[in-house]
Amino acid sequence: MNSSALQASFERLRSRKSFELFVVAVIIASALLVGVKTYEIPTASQRLLGWLDVLITVIFLAEISIRFIAEPHKASFFRNPWNLFDTLVVAVSLIPIDNSDMALVARLVRVFRVLRMVSIIPELRMLLSSLVKALPQLGYVILLMFIIFYIYAAVGATLFEPINPDLWGDIAISMLTLFRVMTFEDWTDVMYETMAVYPLSWFYYLSFIFFTAFAFLNMVIGIVVNVMNAENEKLLQAQAEAAHEPTLRDIHEKLERLERLLKTRE
Amino acid sequence: MNSSALQASFERLRSRKSFELFVVAVIIASALLVGVKTYEIPTASQRLLGWLDVLITVIFLAEISIRFIAEPHKASFFRNPWNLFDTLVVAVSLIPIDNSDMALVARLVRVFRVLRMVSIIPELRMLLSSLVKALPQLGYVILLMFIIFYIYAAVGATLFEPINPDLWGDIAISMLTLFRVMTFEDWTDVMYETMAVYPLSWFYYLSFIFFTAFAFLNMVIGIVVNVMNAENEKLLQAQAEAAHEPTLRDIHEKLERLERLLKTRE
Amino acid sequence: MNSSALQASFERLRSRKSFELFVVAVIIASALLVGVKTYEIPTASQRLLGWLDVLITVIFLAEISIRFIAEPHKASFFRNPWNLFDTLVVAVSLIPIDNSDMALVARLVRVFRVLRMVSIIPELRMLLSSLVKALPQLGYVILLMFIIFYIYAAVGATLFEPINPDLWGDIAISMLTLFRVMTFEDWTDVMYETMAVYPLSWFYYLSFIFFTAFAFLNMVIGIVVNVMNAENEKLLQAQAEAAHEPTLRDIHEKLERLERLLKTRE
Amino acid sequence: MNSSALQASFERLRSRKSFELFVVAVIIASALLVGVKTYEIPTASQRLLGWLDVLITVIFLAEISIRFIAEPHKASFFRNPWNLFDTLVVAVSLIPIDNSDMALVARLVRVFRVLRMVSIIPELRMLLSSLVKALPQLGYVILLMFIIFYIYAAVGATLFEPINPDLWGDIAISMLTLFRVMTFEDWTDVMYETMAVYPLSWFYYLSFIFFTAFAFLNMVIGIVVNVMNAENEKLLQAQAEAAHEPTLRDIHEKLERLERLLKTRE
Repeated sequence: MNSSALQASFERLRSRKSFELFVVAVIIASALLVGVKTYEIPTASQRLLGWLDVLITVIFLAEISIRFIAEPHKASFFRNPWNLFDTLVVAVSLIPIDNSDMALVARLVRVFRVLRMVSIIPELRMLLSSLVKALPQLGYVILLMFIIFYIYAAVGATLFEPINPDLWGDIAISMLTLFRVMTFEDWTDVMYETMAVYPLSWFYYLSFIFFTAFAFLNMVIGIVVNVMNAENEKLLQAQAEAAHEPTLRDIHEKLERLERLLKTRE
Repeated sequence: MNSSALQASFERLRSRKSFELFVVAVIIASALLVGVKTYEIPTASQRLLGWLDVLITVIFLAEISIRFIAEPHKASFFRNPWNLFDTLVVAVSLIPIDNSDMALVARLVRVFRVLRMVSIIPELRMLLSSLVKALPQLGYVILLMFIIFYIYAAVGATLFEPINPDLWGDIAISMLTLFRVMTFEDWTDVMYETMAVYPLSWFYYLSFIFFTAFAFLNMVIGIVVNVMNAENEKLLQAQAEAAHEPTLRDIHEKLERLERLLKTRE
Repeated sequence: MNSSALQASFERLRSRKSFELFVVAVIIASALLVGVKTYEIPTASQRLLGWLDVLITVIFLAEISIRFIAEPHKASFFRNPWNLFDTLVVAVSLIPIDNSDMALVARLVRVFRVLRMVSIIPELRMLLSSLVKALPQLGYVILLMFIIFYIYAAVGATLFEPINPDLWGDIAISMLTLFRVMTFEDWTDVMYETMAVYPLSWFYYLSFIFFTAFAFLNMVIGIVVNVMNAENEKLLQAQAEAAHEPTLRDIHEKLERLERLLKTRE
Repeated sequence: MNSSALQASFERLRSRKSFELFVVAVIIASALLVGVKTYEIPTASQRLLGWLDVLITVIFLAEISIRFIAEPHKASFFRNPWNLFDTLVVAVSLIPIDNSDMALVARLVRVFRVLRMVSIIPELRMLLSSLVKALPQLGYVILLMFIIFYIYAAVGATLFEPINPDLWGDIAISMLTLFRVMTFEDWTDVMYETMAVYPLSWFYYLSFIFFTAFAFLNMVIGIVVNVMNAENEKLLQAQAEAAHEPTLRDIHEKLERLERLLKTRE
């Protein structure tokens, strides 16, 4: 059996619905395994879980191999970021780990196998990539928000550091504190503390809340408008195509034909 | 009087406005009864409430019977989920309960009678079914959100369990803690606790908040866009129908008729 | 000078810009007075404030009288709810109050004079009436929300009353507690308390949050869609009217004229 | 070299991409410097930072001078608010400050240099000016919100001052407390405290929350509708222009030409 026949037969295997369902089932099993491990487990069951873990790793390895062999153009396989992600997750699972400190890392890596749920279900993959695509459009709003945070954090760290170094120790901690203020999480405690020293510091907090709320609102509206516009254009196109609705241009052209017809007969 | 005449006369009774209003009044009375029972009541009044309770149960039983007899096709009666719900609520009320432990359950069942308000008012029924209809469209966003929760909970339960088992004991408790973080409820207390051990754990919380906020935003926008599109199409159709506005297609056809007319005359 | 001449001259006075500006200035002064009174004031100034208060009351009385006399149809004066509101506020200010307990009420009445700002500025009046108009459209969503609150409060008061009577004592207190949960205000404290007795009570809170969030979202989307539709229709009409843009109907009629023309010539 | 040749050569310099990138780099360096200063720094490095600070001030001074000389119409230079802002920030940096109290102010002024990031990047400048432009449209909603705050604060300061002067001492503190209630920050603590004296004061808080939520919602919807309308008009124009799509008016005119053609031939 030559390599191209193998590739073709593996491609048939990969495109079978039952193959995909089996892989989804194994991913769900691996997700459940991750969940079960967070509970206290008797040692007897723990060995069983260890074997299941190995079994899942083997199945994942087999599945990746099948998908790799099934690919007609080997080079393009790793150009797909999802394939790369799947291979990475499986590869890291293969590294033998004995050290107890590394055991924690190994468990965390197994958690990322759950993300394979996203890479295997096309709808989730589309959802995620649409999220990622939306980000650059928001680039400048995010930059503006970061500048607001940075300036307020610098002011906060300069003025309020002696009052409470745990909250305003340096610019990084101050930004975390400001994020907390933005989520309204016990922000008045933070404010009352500084108001005891600087009675006008309420202006610092209120202006920060207004600016971030406004920038955030702007961001949300930006996304809504983008989505709506895309949706509207899709709707218009779909209408036109589905109904074979004549466009204004069609009618215009028809009228020009009519006019020419009338003129030539004169 | 034969069964079909009975059915017809009950159907007339059921469709009377006064019948419906009476049932709504009884449901409101039963709702008030449920509310009154949560207050401390003197024993004398308590007996009165008991009798009222029995009376309402009897009226509900009578009403369901009338609606059942009024139905021309008995089989289709229970196909309507609202009828099924009404019958169930009444049926459970009929079970005699003496045990004090069961008394609590009996009181809870009586609470669900208030839901009959939804089943009797058509507008509320429509509202609820439109909510239920909106859910499948959001299926994949909800699945994505669940995966985000699951992965973060698994990581949290793995890393933070020794720090605070009450919050991160197992994956279920961790998911509850993460839901709390998502609602911004004292989330910094949770964060500061883990930051004492893992100083970089703020990244865990912030990334979680960003992901869930983004997914949530996506969900909201998804609903808004769906509702808007449905609304727009309704508006366009209504406009076209109400005004008998000629469509582009009508004009196109008319032009083709004109063209044919001109050509045949040549 | 007869009564109709008086009415006409007062109507001219009322419609003067300077008259309106003077009234706005007095209302602002009365608002500032209300604010100043919340501070500790030396007794000397307090007498001055008392005199200012009397002066403002007199001016308000004069203004209402002018507006009443200026009205050609006296009967329709009180049909306008804003006039009724203004008269009421002024009338209540006139009641002489000596008792110290009533003094508090008198001060509160003076606070409502600030609301005259809304009744005097047309844009605010429109804003408020558009808010009030939006309410009936939301009637059923609000009813649904109330039913959700009522049922959950009844269940809460039944199950959790022995755990914390301060939060779940009766159905009214329970509804307040649930409103608190809806605003995410220390809701986990409430939940953890009941979870100690009923470990599954997290489901009660989470389902409540989901239902109310969904109903609230529905309400918001309902408002947005209503506003947008109204806005879209306005935009379409404005476009058509402003540009004298021919409609599809115009073109259709023109084509029919052309067709008749061609047919008659045959 | 005469002044106009100097102006022209500086204009060329200013419009070079590399010049702009260099300024952005210096602004970023100045921002980093601001951040670094919030950390504890060894004295040796502190001197280096001082020199860097002077260097940045010199570069900023040079840049402003170049931009001023490059401007053909000197008078219009300061009419641009961004130029004014840049000049101000640089000018204030030049004031020599020795006093330790003033040192804090000097550090704060340096923080505002980070805002030059906004003035140098056109997209951020546009974003900010679009935010500022949106404000007047919202004028009346903000005024309404302020009136709601003012009235509730006056009532709160009148009734609740004896209960907790820290929260309800005067109208200004009361407005801050109400803003806290609006953000749902431990608002139940505030409420429970007053409910101990006035059991019905929950109505005060709930009505306040409803009013502000409604006004806020109105504001958000107002912004969304404005943005959407602007967006829709842009979309319609862009469509018409991009595709050279014939408008209904074009078709109408063509039909009129055809009609004339037919009539003249009769």
